[in-house]
Amino acid sequence: MEVINDLLGYDNMKIIQNTDMFSFSLDSVLLANFVSLNKNITNVLDIGCGNAPIPLILSTKTSASITGVEIQPDVYDMAKRSVSINNLDDRINIINDDINNYANNVESDSFDVITCNPPFFKVNPGSNFNESEYKVIARHEVKLDLNQLFKISRKLLKNGGVVSIVHRPDRLIDIISVMRENNIEPKRLRFIYPKEGRECNMILVEGSKNGKTGLKILPPLITHNSDGSYTKEVLEYFER
Amino acid sequence: MEVINDLLGYDNMKIIQNTDMFSFSLDSVLLANFVSLNKNITNVLDIGCGNAPIPLILSTKTSASITGVEIQPDVYDMAKRSVSINNLDDRINIINDDINNYANNVESDSFDVITCNPPFFKVNPGSNFNESEYKVIARHEVKLDLNQLFKISRKLLKNGGVVSIVHRPDRLIDIISVMRENNIEPKRLRFIYPKEGRECNMILVEGSKNGKTGLKILPPLITHNSDGSYTKEVLEYFER
Repeated sequence: MEVINDLLGYDNMKIIQNTDMFSFSLDSVLLANFVSLNKNITNVLDIGCGNAPIPLILSTKTSASITGVEIQPDVYDMAKRSVSINNLDDRINIINDDINNYANNVESDSFDVITCNPPFFKVNPGSNFNESEYKVIARHEVKLDLNQLFKISRKLLKNGGVVSIVHRPDRLIDIISVMRENNIEPKRLRFIYPKEGRECNMILVEGSKNGKTGLKILPPLITHNSDGSYTKEVLEYFER
Repeated sequence: MEVINDLLGYDNMKIIQNTDMFSFSLDSVLLANFVSLNKNITNVLDIGCGNAPIPLILSTKTSASITGVEIQPDVYDMAKRSVSINNLDDRINIINDDINNYANNVESDSFDVITCNPPFFKVNPGSNFNESEYKVIARHEVKLDLNQLFKISRKLLKNGGVVSIVHRPDRLIDIISVMRENNIEPKRLRFIYPKEGRECNMILVEGSKNGKTGLKILPPLITHNSDGSYTKEVLEYFER
């Protein structure tokens, strides 16, 4: 069923979702609030934009032109309409394409910033996809894996441009290895914990194309209080 | 000036220090409380043991035989006497040697666990050592760098054995890269923050020789309250 939801109160922004496919998640909100944006950036790319939560949130934070690429036609269609109902067609461009194909056809060194909330799960010989095709593509590395993501980032980023992603902690080492293989130096990390005293369940990683070594690890972010409610910092993201 | 201090109340343990050289620090206490120890381990090695805070603390947590290697004769001498005044000569063996030389002469696959609080700073052509030789060797990678540390760990660890270190966050990416180059898979990380809302200032990293991929990130540890006093978790380390 398709519904129109508030995108977290962001300037009264709306987002179109389909409960049979998937809904945008906290991951995307945290990533959109983590990525480094400065006043000089002109072009932002969101890889695998889904129904466009990241482009929509970023439009409140930067005046740069934002491109979202989404492989699935039905999801692309929702993203496109979400942009339209917010009157953002002149600032956000949604493209229906496989990012691998898109990257082959677009000029190198085009973007200042790339964001991605990628599929989290490796595909193994034993992988059993007990989900709709929508969810399989969004969650499993069938159309985009870490190697492809950072190879594409290396091509499309301007020198010194940054790529920011959200992922699961058990992949941190792979992410760092693949970033370095592609001359993307990890520069900022933030670790997300579901509650006080619990292990990390989400990571935010940002790297710079041809960047110098040297890493900052930001303060930890705990998302929930012991009663299950969102913590103050998370609520602030929702109340912009 | 040489003094005898309490080693943090650990079973009324004492440690000999020399205020002209350096004193053991919180780093070592955190590392000794982070490293994975299980009942089956028989041999532990502490690389660059200084005046032996880590071997002394570990002796309260494991019945394994503990070896500490220290390159500086005067520091070795303090370590040796610190072990003796605690009547631990039968469990802790302190050796005065360069760890690179020691590793060449000891059998491969000898240790279940290696710990190291290594020198933190890279040596660059412009490095200016405005310190005593004691401090230069303890703080700068003049006698032991990350490549050497993990090459030695790879040689001396049993298969599946672990190496645990404490370091600064800006070296995390280097540490992970060098571990993987030496078939040591990072398995556990913990990030230390000086106060709430502040960036990470210390990291604890543990890897397993020929270990499978998959990483756990433990809950964050904040060391100080806003009034500068130690937090509850740190105080607990001091009160064993």
